[in-house]
Amino acid sequence: MSLSERALIATIRRRANRAPSSTLARGIGDDCAVLRPPRGHELLVTTDFCLENVHFRRAWHPAKAIGHRCLVRGLSDIAAMGGFPLAIFLSLALPQDISQRWANDFFTGLLALADRWKTPLAGGDIAQSPQNVMADILVIGSVPKGKAILRSGASPGDLIYVTGKLGLSSGALEEFRHRRKPTPRTAPRHFFPEPRIQVGQYLRVQKLATAMIDISDGLSTDLSHICDESGVGAVLFSESIPHGYSLDLALHGGEDYELLFTASPRSQVPAQIASTKVTAIGEIVSRRGMWLTDAMGRRTPLKPRGWEHFRHSGK
Amino acid sequence: MSLSERALIATIRRRANRAPSSTLARGIGDDCAVLRPPRGHELLVTTDFCLENVHFRRAWHPAKAIGHRCLVRGLSDIAAMGGFPLAIFLSLALPQDISQRWANDFFTGLLALADRWKTPLAGGDIAQSPQNVMADILVIGSVPKGKAILRSGASPGDLIYVTGKLGLSSGALEEFRHRRKPTPRTAPRHFFPEPRIQVGQYLRVQKLATAMIDISDGLSTDLSHICDESGVGAVLFSESIPHGYSLDLALHGGEDYELLFTASPRSQVPAQIASTKVTAIGEIVSRRGMWLTDAMGRRTPLKPRGWEHFRHSGK
Repeated sequence: MSLSERALIATIRRRANRAPSSTLARGIGDDCAVLRPPRGHELLVTTDFCLENVHFRRAWHPAKAIGHRCLVRGLSDIAAMGGFPLAIFLSLALPQDISQRWANDFFTGLLALADRWKTPLAGGDIAQSPQNVMADILVIGSVPKGKAILRSGASPGDLIYVTGKLGLSSGALEEFRHRRKPTPRTAPRHFFPEPRIQVGQYLRVQKLATAMIDISDGLSTDLSHICDESGVGAVLFSESIPHGYSLDLALHGGEDYELLFTASPRSQVPAQIASTKVTAIGEIVSRRGMWLTDAMGRRTPLKPRGWEHFRHSGK
Repeated sequence: MSLSERALIATIRRRANRAPSSTLARGIGDDCAVLRPPRGHELLVTTDFCLENVHFRRAWHPAKAIGHRCLVRGLSDIAAMGGFPLAIFLSLALPQDISQRWANDFFTGLLALADRWKTPLAGGDIAQSPQNVMADILVIGSVPKGKAILRSGASPGDLIYVTGKLGLSSGALEEFRHRRKPTPRTAPRHFFPEPRIQVGQYLRVQKLATAMIDISDGLSTDLSHICDESGVGAVLFSESIPHGYSLDLALHGGEDYELLFTASPRSQVPAQIASTKVTAIGEIVSRRGMWLTDAMGRRTPLKPRGWEHFRHSGK
């Protein structure tokens, strides 16, 4: 192994935040980390795999971007509840052919994003993988008790909103597939997407969102989760959906890490929150199912066929 | 894939505890789980990989035992802080050749242990693995504020104690290597080790332990962690170490999931706690380093060379 586990653990211990804080009473270096969440808050817990050839390719993505994207998966889930992050845990299995440089860059990308949200890396595990990089990211966050924005709060008549533009991340993958080479400069939302934490908190504090989810699997699939959990249906206006590449990628592309939320039609939802565009794209209906309406008023059924990452259809 | 991800997620949702409780306000089915830890408690967080050919072999271990052992890794860490478990999260990557039956048995083993400790499976992630079963288990627990038993509290003069017998788990592996076939009946501490949660809580409540760790990597390695974090050394009495196979496996074998703790010589540590034998095996000294003393009083240096699971020495 070109990279010893011991060296890697030493790297993590050196680079992780070991100083106790008001929130993290004990980080790396004991059987468990010890967390002290803010008084009157409840905890948010989310875990997400970040797997080579499923969520990234080493040939396409710089290690820094992989570390960043790995953490974004968790931070975006915290954003989708209206919470803020408290601590990060990373379990990382690396194959033998990984260099110390790759591992360092991975941690640089991950920790730069963690630092921007003042969230310490508080623990995790390291192992050797038989093949492929496999990361499992855990983010613990908090939200004032009873104030988490769930998927289950949407009501008929609510408007459906989305932040930013959709399809930018899957659009970059399309470019890779057509042998063009997108870069962090041409496709920042693919390589270094920022989690919409401030938007989520604003929506919670202003009591604007009735239901919320982050778009990680694609608009059609993530909207179906809100519909399922709320027991409602949805109609989207195809002309309104903000997209960068194509309507199809905006509907079914994944890893946008934008927020999808519903709000009462009586609520004043700003057109921009924390410098992020917010667009109304449809409305919740009582009849179960999802539909797409075009400029001519034609309504077609919309199936959840969110992005299957790099997976083959044969599974 | 003989086992669809969708079918597996459906299995988990059906078998996991979805009913909200006083602790788990929201389980599987949202961007994050929502936890409400007991008032005045701080949180314990531990994550552990459980990897095929590192921590288990499919040819040797029944799927039920693998699920059980996977969860024990986390529960044992909670025990080692004197805490109790609140919720479990499982990230599971399965290769294509895994059957639905294997997955069901894995969950049966894991959930039976979770149920005994009234700890709900509150979330996680599922993915396809290119090769090998890879599980990452996260356990969240809690302990009254400031009362967690750390590795760093040992002082010179403290006695060193261990629960149960050591080397039973690695002894079973030795049997496998010698083509004998240990079974859950002949080697229960290998296939279905019980985490020492009640012992850990007793030691915390009675204020007996000054430092504690669970023995997952082997006595010599785990004792070295207490020494490192406490800034002390240790002398073990080889005649006192309770073992099942050999002193060597007791010293360096892994996955015992027994508790190793230190206590003041003035403390009255019972010989049995929660039906588990407790044995004094040595004492903490101020000089850094570890030594083994035999019945004749001969002292030899003891190096941390804990069990490297199935790993090759070449790494």
